[in-house]
Amino acid sequence: MKFVSLLGATGSIGQQTLDVIASHPYQFKLSAMSVGRNIEAAQHIIHKFNPEICAVQNEEDAAALQSKVSTNTKIVFGMDGLIEAAVSTKASILVNAVIGSVGLLPTLKAIEAKKTIALANKETLVTAGHIVMREAKKHNVTILPVDSEHSAIFQCLNGEAVDEVEKLILTASGGSFRDRTREELKNVTVKEALNHPNWSMGAKITIDSATMMNKGLEVIEAHWLFSFDYSKIDVILHKESIIHSMVEFADTSIIAHLGQPDMRVPIQYALTYPQRLELINGKRLNLWEVGKLHFQKMDYDRFRCLKLAFDAGEMGGLMPAVLNAANEKAVELFLDGKITFLEIEEMIEQAMLQAVNVSNPELGAIQETDQRTRQFVESLLNKGR
Amino acid sequence: MKFVSLLGATGSIGQQTLDVIASHPYQFKLSAMSVGRNIEAAQHIIHKFNPEICAVQNEEDAAALQSKVSTNTKIVFGMDGLIEAAVSTKASILVNAVIGSVGLLPTLKAIEAKKTIALANKETLVTAGHIVMREAKKHNVTILPVDSEHSAIFQCLNGEAVDEVEKLILTASGGSFRDRTREELKNVTVKEALNHPNWSMGAKITIDSATMMNKGLEVIEAHWLFSFDYSKIDVILHKESIIHSMVEFADTSIIAHLGQPDMRVPIQYALTYPQRLELINGKRLNLWEVGKLHFQKMDYDRFRCLKLAFDAGEMGGLMPAVLNAANEKAVELFLDGKITFLEIEEMIEQAMLQAVNVSNPELGAIQETDQRTRQFVESLLNKGR
Repeated sequence: MKFVSLLGATGSIGQQTLDVIASHPYQFKLSAMSVGRNIEAAQHIIHKFNPEICAVQNEEDAAALQSKVSTNTKIVFGMDGLIEAAVSTKASILVNAVIGSVGLLPTLKAIEAKKTIALANKETLVTAGHIVMREAKKHNVTILPVDSEHSAIFQCLNGEAVDEVEKLILTASGGSFRDRTREELKNVTVKEALNHPNWSMGAKITIDSATMMNKGLEVIEAHWLFSFDYSKIDVILHKESIIHSMVEFADTSIIAHLGQPDMRVPIQYALTYPQRLELINGKRLNLWEVGKLHFQKMDYDRFRCLKLAFDAGEMGGLMPAVLNAANEKAVELFLDGKITFLEIEEMIEQAMLQAVNVSNPELGAIQETDQRTRQFVESLLNKGR
Repeated sequence: MKFVSLLGATGSIGQQTLDVIASHPYQFKLSAMSVGRNIEAAQHIIHKFNPEICAVQNEEDAAALQSKVSTNTKIVFGMDGLIEAAVSTKASILVNAVIGSVGLLPTLKAIEAKKTIALANKETLVTAGHIVMREAKKHNVTILPVDSEHSAIFQCLNGEAVDEVEKLILTASGGSFRDRTREELKNVTVKEALNHPNWSMGAKITIDSATMMNKGLEVIEAHWLFSFDYSKIDVILHKESIIHSMVEFADTSIIAHLGQPDMRVPIQYALTYPQRLELINGKRLNLWEVGKLHFQKMDYDRFRCLKLAFDAGEMGGLMPAVLNAANEKAVELFLDGKITFLEIEEMIEQAMLQAVNVSNPELGAIQETDQRTRQFVESLLNKGR
């Protein structure tokens, strides 16, 4: 029996993690969880999974929730609560599926507590990859990817020697607007952007998929997870999202991971690694049903956010934190109808241009940069640009 | 430095094995070899690689060859010579690339001599898989596949647990006639059959590729190499031959091996396993250059030879030997212009129908069946069917 702590239980990844846990009741038990402000959903989850602890965003919600659930489940709140949920139970693995840079601190605390980390929170590695990997190494903790692309690469590296790898090849569906020109992107709506062709995901990540920033963050994440230079990481357009990613070796062999677009696969793999379990109600992939797989060279002019992410990754230091915070804020503004789709990348670029970089920054500097960048992007809006 | 014994040095696989050996002079040294009757080619190879021993088919050729090369290389002949080349040097690995059932005995002798076996000779496993794998287990010898499909599967199984495998999926290009109907197959010529769209191979294997018997033999080989029931082995049509084969796991994950159609990849992998080396002058695969990959459900009525192979495999015992010998003889008759393309499968089916099967046969019974089946097929020709 593996005990699991799950941060971000009501999000898309969180819900599917709960599905996996529920589908293998003799293998997994939820011992801690967090939600944001969806108290009703939290109540249902607590009723079903009976965790020891549940963290919510604020004190008021915590009191309201505690009054509705058994005292077997302790309700905590705020960042302290989130960290308590991450570290305090006998969970051997932390699934970090919170969205945004709030996921960083609990991850670091869980590493100190020697929990295996299953990481769906990209920002943790993007903004502080050097710290996270340094701490993971120091405490001899395994970081398991939950992203479909990184899980694919991780699986393709099974039994292989890292120094025989020529290249990591991440596949990108191209998102909601893959077939539109830049000209056509000028007036796209929020609703159109949220209509992803292959994956059903949360709003922020669906927009990131449309801008290709999602792939950019994954490139930076891959750099840290697998310790490869950016020159050894490639992105290829593959609209069916059937090949989830690939690894090319010195002998020209390419090992690829294929499957249905089902996030439960990487989630379950992180939970069962190094074993595999049956995916309950999983749909098997018949390639003859798919018929054709398409591939296209990545166009870095068309997808400027991906180029910005490679740039930020190569610059290193604070720059990925700038990229990420500017993107989070800009996507928020886009979802709120305050800026256009193409202004997302413009704002990120401006934020990167104004940033003062330092190498190997500590947590405080990263958090400060995160805040300052968000304010800067906000100020762009007020200036009317 | 790894010392290599190579049987079948002048064939397609043999030549490419020599290329790999020559391309890594600090890693590999040819210490023994065999050829059939191509004495001139043997002379060149001996001059270049200076092996300790070279086996040829007959005594006359042996004498002629010995007179032309240094006495550093001992020339031997016949089956005894072939076995001597397989076992007598300090080679740690035997690459068995001879064509046909003549490859069986040297393989068994090399297993007894505790050599690692790199097997390009399908018939060895097809006709006597139960004996070969039993002996390999007994002598703790590794059998490494050299076929592109089996090497792909072997690589996809790296670091994985066999009991978590759902299915092996072999890809088949469809061969020279993949787009023709059965009606159109009636009058195809030998020349047309020899024109394979993706791979440059020998005549026998190119015909086997057109009849799909090649895939059938691979299915039986996969059954023995990886110890999977035939119900867990699938074949899918994939005309580009870019995905070389796949493994599907319990969690619906599929791991695939991709690459250019270059037999040096599986050959070199067998020589370097478990490491990988750079493939010298290897062409890397860019999927965006390929653009599209196509997949189609296998049609067992269209490709009757594949169905016959599954049947023979499932029946077991002597039946794969009957299938193989009937196929070898029928292909020979087709290449000689004595029968039509579709008569190949008819002859194999008739040979299977007349055969008396026994389970778990020993070597003598297999060899006797091989001879009797060839005679039976020959007799079909004389009867005018």
